[in-house]
Amino acid sequence: MAKEENIRLIIIGGGEDKRADKKILKEVVHLSGGEKTKIAVITTATNYPLEVGEEYKRIFYDLGVSKVDTINIASRKEANQKQLLRSLDDIDCVFFVGGDQLRISSILGGTEFHHYIQKHLEDRLIIAGTSAGASMMSEVMVVEGDDEDAPRKCTVSMAPGMGFLKEVIIDQHFNQRGRIGRLLGAVAQNPYTLGIGIDEDTAIVVDTSNEIQVVGSGVITIVDGKNIKYTNISEQYPDEPLAITNVNVHILPKGYRYNLVNRKAIIDDVNTKETEEDHR
Amino acid sequence: MAKEENIRLIIIGGGEDKRADKKILKEVVHLSGGEKTKIAVITTATNYPLEVGEEYKRIFYDLGVSKVDTINIASRKEANQKQLLRSLDDIDCVFFVGGDQLRISSILGGTEFHHYIQKHLEDRLIIAGTSAGASMMSEVMVVEGDDEDAPRKCTVSMAPGMGFLKEVIIDQHFNQRGRIGRLLGAVAQNPYTLGIGIDEDTAIVVDTSNEIQVVGSGVITIVDGKNIKYTNISEQYPDEPLAITNVNVHILPKGYRYNLVNRKAIIDDVNTKETEEDHR
Repeated sequence: MAKEENIRLIIIGGGEDKRADKKILKEVVHLSGGEKTKIAVITTATNYPLEVGEEYKRIFYDLGVSKVDTINIASRKEANQKQLLRSLDDIDCVFFVGGDQLRISSILGGTEFHHYIQKHLEDRLIIAGTSAGASMMSEVMVVEGDDEDAPRKCTVSMAPGMGFLKEVIIDQHFNQRGRIGRLLGAVAQNPYTLGIGIDEDTAIVVDTSNEIQVVGSGVITIVDGKNIKYTNISEQYPDEPLAITNVNVHILPKGYRYNLVNRKAIIDDVNTKETEEDHR
Repeated sequence: MAKEENIRLIIIGGGEDKRADKKILKEVVHLSGGEKTKIAVITTATNYPLEVGEEYKRIFYDLGVSKVDTINIASRKEANQKQLLRSLDDIDCVFFVGGDQLRISSILGGTEFHHYIQKHLEDRLIIAGTSAGASMMSEVMVVEGDDEDAPRKCTVSMAPGMGFLKEVIIDQHFNQRGRIGRLLGAVAQNPYTLGIGIDEDTAIVVDTSNEIQVVGSGVITIVDGKNIKYTNISEQYPDEPLAITNVNVHILPKGYRYNLVNRKAIIDDVNTKETEEDHR
């Protein structure tokens, strides 16, 4: 196995630097196995598969990657073809570009391609994705929702995602597009789910023990609704503003880690020069 | 006394409707004593004192108010004049228009005018304010801070406010200007303070028992940092993004009430048709 053994997902908030340090894309390469890694770039989400595919191909080659395939799966029929699955047999990292997450879920959801990568996530693959390719990672994904407004009950539409990350809702371009309102709305509708908003040029790396680490120049915003006391979400008037109380919020920049199982931030001397917090 | 006896402050998030229902401005009139009320409109914050003053005068007269004075206190010397104080002796409500909160604090802070209204807040005055006139209400006010960015340590500048509301930081135009980042930053710097972000066309009414009620078409966002576990706010690099964990957030639309002393939302059948929550 070429990849770092315990890494499963790399979830990027969009707008990752492609010209200067390229920190996040370097991290994708490094965690997938370095220069020996083989990457499949899935361009399904975008309206410009040729251009976007070529851009990522060029960047990954510049970063020393030995093999980069661009694959534009444009129909469910294509997503069910054995030929496609065979072409993935030597791949280490499947990388989903941005665009429309509904294209990803509606074209790829439940297909042989989906089953294949979900299965091999367990033994050899890393799945990475940016922007729409980040949102699609969860079981339930945000597909619509006004930016920057007071969260209203009708504001957030959700749809089934690809389910690579359980009990988490991912949103991206987070601070840049003022999206905390819609993430709060999404969590209020599903208080057992954890909301994670990822800024541009920022990513979370998810490992096999369900810890996440933040990389990149922005922050992630974690919205934990498990202690929500009250919401008016199910009441009669959909255009009413949302009422929610007791949401727990964390903001974590690069280097910080968080445990998705016990829902606690991990503060230790690697990133903070403080003693490790107890995991209560 | 003309006013509702237990109302002290009416804090408006800016952009209150001035053409249609005028709900919030009607509430200002109603709570100050109805048509018999006498209002002093303080235009210190704005660069356009004549126009802004005349606009509020017209609106309050249209709402049936018997007396509206516009007072443009433009210097500390004017703010210390006995003549000014005497002109306030029959006033029920002092209304601060929007503009630059630093003008309010630097011109009026600590003057005889300030002492006078602070003193009479206790026995007969209501103090109302919108936009900058809302921010200035706290002991510490936000004066600068990038909207919509990931909260960074250097993002929020604060300055002493007029201190009508203790241990609370007010921000306004809240969802409309994507300001939760800077409010989180402000609270992280002062975790004992409660952050309250007020949307446009939304207000909080503060009574003498330090309960607040929300009025208007938007929401308020309460950011409670008392359980903050960790922030990197005091570390070496000011441009680093902020790390904060365990911030408690509440979103409350109109009709909802919150107790500033025990920091709990009040859920009862007046606004929700549910039984009253216990105050733990």
